[in-house]
Amino acid sequence: MAKREDELVLLPLGGAGEIGMNFNAYGFGPAHARQWIVVDCGVLFGREGDTPGIDLIMPDIRFLAEQAEDVLAIVLTHAHEDHIGAVPHLWPQLRCPIYATPFTAKLVTGKLIEAGLADKVKVREVPLGGHLDIGPFAVDYVSITHSIPEPNALAIKTWLGTVVHTGDWKIDPEPLLGDVTDTNRLTRLGDEGVLALVCDSTNALHEGHSGSEATVRESLAELIGRLKGRVAVTAFASNVARLVSIAKAARAAGREVALVGRAMQKMVAAARETGYLDDFPRVIDEAEAALLPPHRALYLVTGSQGEPRAALARIASGDHPNVKLGPGDSVIFSSRIIPGNELGIFALHNKLCALGVEVLTEQDHFVHVSGHPYKDELAQMYRWVRPKIAVPVHGELRHMAEHARLARSLQVPEAVTIENGQMLRLAPGPAEIIDEVPAGRIYLDGSVLVDESADHGRERRAMGFAGLIAVTLVLDQRGRVAGEPVLFLEGIPDSVREAVRVAVDSATRRYNPKKGDEEALRENVRRAARRAALEAWDKKPVTRVEIAWV
Amino acid sequence: MAKREDELVLLPLGGAGEIGMNFNAYGFGPAHARQWIVVDCGVLFGREGDTPGIDLIMPDIRFLAEQAEDVLAIVLTHAHEDHIGAVPHLWPQLRCPIYATPFTAKLVTGKLIEAGLADKVKVREVPLGGHLDIGPFAVDYVSITHSIPEPNALAIKTWLGTVVHTGDWKIDPEPLLGDVTDTNRLTRLGDEGVLALVCDSTNALHEGHSGSEATVRESLAELIGRLKGRVAVTAFASNVARLVSIAKAARAAGREVALVGRAMQKMVAAARETGYLDDFPRVIDEAEAALLPPHRALYLVTGSQGEPRAALARIASGDHPNVKLGPGDSVIFSSRIIPGNELGIFALHNKLCALGVEVLTEQDHFVHVSGHPYKDELAQMYRWVRPKIAVPVHGELRHMAEHARLARSLQVPEAVTIENGQMLRLAPGPAEIIDEVPAGRIYLDGSVLVDESADHGRERRAMGFAGLIAVTLVLDQRGRVAGEPVLFLEGIPDSVREAVRVAVDSATRRYNPKKGDEEALRENVRRAARRAALEAWDKKPVTRVEIAWV
Repeated sequence: MAKREDELVLLPLGGAGEIGMNFNAYGFGPAHARQWIVVDCGVLFGREGDTPGIDLIMPDIRFLAEQAEDVLAIVLTHAHEDHIGAVPHLWPQLRCPIYATPFTAKLVTGKLIEAGLADKVKVREVPLGGHLDIGPFAVDYVSITHSIPEPNALAIKTWLGTVVHTGDWKIDPEPLLGDVTDTNRLTRLGDEGVLALVCDSTNALHEGHSGSEATVRESLAELIGRLKGRVAVTAFASNVARLVSIAKAARAAGREVALVGRAMQKMVAAARETGYLDDFPRVIDEAEAALLPPHRALYLVTGSQGEPRAALARIASGDHPNVKLGPGDSVIFSSRIIPGNELGIFALHNKLCALGVEVLTEQDHFVHVSGHPYKDELAQMYRWVRPKIAVPVHGELRHMAEHARLARSLQVPEAVTIENGQMLRLAPGPAEIIDEVPAGRIYLDGSVLVDESADHGRERRAMGFAGLIAVTLVLDQRGRVAGEPVLFLEGIPDSVREAVRVAVDSATRRYNPKKGDEEALRENVRRAARRAALEAWDKKPVTRVEIAWV
Repeated sequence: MAKREDELVLLPLGGAGEIGMNFNAYGFGPAHARQWIVVDCGVLFGREGDTPGIDLIMPDIRFLAEQAEDVLAIVLTHAHEDHIGAVPHLWPQLRCPIYATPFTAKLVTGKLIEAGLADKVKVREVPLGGHLDIGPFAVDYVSITHSIPEPNALAIKTWLGTVVHTGDWKIDPEPLLGDVTDTNRLTRLGDEGVLALVCDSTNALHEGHSGSEATVRESLAELIGRLKGRVAVTAFASNVARLVSIAKAARAAGREVALVGRAMQKMVAAARETGYLDDFPRVIDEAEAALLPPHRALYLVTGSQGEPRAALARIASGDHPNVKLGPGDSVIFSSRIIPGNELGIFALHNKLCALGVEVLTEQDHFVHVSGHPYKDELAQMYRWVRPKIAVPVHGELRHMAEHARLARSLQVPEAVTIENGQMLRLAPGPAEIIDEVPAGRIYLDGSVLVDESADHGRERRAMGFAGLIAVTLVLDQRGRVAGEPVLFLEGIPDSVREAVRVAVDSATRRYNPKKGDEEALRENVRRAARRAALEAWDKKPVTRVEIAWV
């Protein structure tokens, strides 16, 4: 089995440089005949400021797609969107088996059904702590703690050594739902010798410890217990332990619980079906809750990130059909602000304040803990696993750089920060970047997958900034002007439009058909229009000129 | 003088609902003949996500512009852009005298010169602690502390009572530059009786005290003293006390100081000319600094908010002509993150990390204090001034609501939150909203002022989201198709373009000129194009159809 030319490589195509879009490929074999497994296949969410009109961003996996027959499996660590969200979009390029533990499998299967792929691929369920043999890789699932049911690290064994890929994790001594971190297993792996730890960097800039769900449960119970009026609590729907905490706090305070928003319903259903919610209090319908006295109702609502179509945004705008809030009522944001969402969330706070609702957040109350490891937890993980090589992933460069510094300070012999598309040889020999492969981002634009560098995206940003001038010139077959030019002036102030019209007319009139150079005409009109806009407006719209021949 | 019908009113046209764009008008007299003074005239900065292509946002002051002859003065509290930035853009609508203390006057005059207005209006200098008589208003400048030279509160006296308008403030026992808070004056005003306190709400959500510049000075000296390699520090250029702290820390560590970036140069020059920098260490040219050994240089650079054209962004991109940073060098962000700038600033951190530079921020080191009052400071101000009415301004609703709650908890008899355009009668009688006047936002779009509701702004956002289809149909005078349609397809993926072309051709071919209804043709083509895009792409581009007649 063991061959001299065998190499073990790590190739991140997503997640090394951003929090989100996680996609890590492990390759094994001689350079000319590697076999691959993929760990996680997630999305990043688009933002209007950077990528107008783009909802989802995912990794460019063309390098693996070209050798899809050697991609043996997609192995999923847990069910967050930044780890599974790209499966329905990218699986068709790989067409390999997908492995996941039951809760994750249920959610991925739901996505495959929605995408019409359910008859093409069946997600293979792995039990917690389960084992897989996939070609040259032996993969063990190791239970850890995070902020969703069934988070797993993976121990990926080859004859060249073992990689521990942490997935997303924290050390929660009381996660309230599911197992605690399998520290015995991690320590044993360390005892046996770990080649590399490929590890979550999200909170590498934070000192201390992330805290436990159990302490949030206590705090929420205390807080909800003393609120009057209606209470709505928004949290990440996937944090099922948190939902249980909130529901229990509600019941203890004599309140009925209603779930509001599709993601909330879906996640609770998935957790119930996989056996995680045996002690979840009964829930009532949101319309039923509206009939209760205010102090008897608690709403668990989606939309903690200010998503404009989510339940909480509709409640704040006063146009939710069943949930109305006003003076005396409270909304608890049991969540953090994902960077980039600040203004949207603050706008939501402001709308709620305008209704007279009191807004309670993690800034003023202890209502949230992070699901990712702070520095003390990272240090603990390194003490358990004792790897030869530290490879920070799941972070921007600023997180990965600090994580690498921390690993070095803990005397890990090698700490390497790599970017998407850099192929890192983990063994044999010292860790080394041996190749760079095509990598980048693919956008889901409407229903179409497009490359991030596609011209039309740039055009949209340019039009968003400075509008568009499009001119149709009408020429006959002899090249003579045969009608008035048609102008489209979009996204341009009225006062500027007139200046552009005048410039186009004048440039058209100056045209001498005898010279017959309609390319020069087009260019002259284009320049005249653009110059007029610049003079009147100090901006350069996207400018196009075409000829209609009659 | 005193008339029975006299009223004292406050009319915020900006700043009641946002941090920025401060513009408060105080009116006095009978309702049919009010005279006004304006306190501050600031801008808000546009953001690509919300307002693509808009750099500056300012208040819609049409209500005052229509009675400009009764607007007696613009009185400026201090020189931050959100208090003075709209002066050159809005003054032409009011054409009244402008009053400011010397440092503020210098900066405003610079703006008026750039705008070509310097010969039309001369800023009238008021000494610190000075007094103005403006029609029915007697205005006293009261020295306070903030994060810029010469911050002032105003005591605005009328026979119906005194308003204390705080401007931006904190309580800094050691501001390092300029006077400490004139607590005697504030207490005396309280003793004499204050009708209303119109007060900064920025940090009303923060418990405790904002801290002092003096402690930041110590911390920066300690930090800069132990750094090796080149050091760049970025801070708000207007925080001149901070610049002095950094320069002194540099000199103490044996480093020469170079100022990098136009705003830094400009602000230091203004402070020097108004006598605030007598003890500022000598500065050297940035090209000269490049010749020094790394541990002998410190750069004070603009761009702490990630502004793409500022010095620090250029340094991080490696294309600054004179400042190069690399492994072993450090950048200190001696500033906070203004909400909404997170992603831009983090992108800057990431670029610096990619160069091997260490990034130090207020998250990991004590390198910044806020210039606005936390709750303990607000409480202190209420104890000094003891107003009858609290009017929170300079905040979003969430800040103003909390500020009002705090004021009530301090037993202020009346606390009123108002929005831009709401006219609040302060006296006689209880505080009451007596009118709503037109208010809103004006955008500086390129060089043109436009209303926030202008169609072209919406068009730009729509094109940014889903692109544009523009079709020119060519018809002869009998209404027959006389040439191929011309299509402009902008911001649309390639695969979708083809579908739109086919649909437009087919809709054009179906046209029967005998019926001669070219409006129906236009509408049919428009619908066909839009439907084709929706089917192929799941998005609806902006769609325009025009006819070229030949």
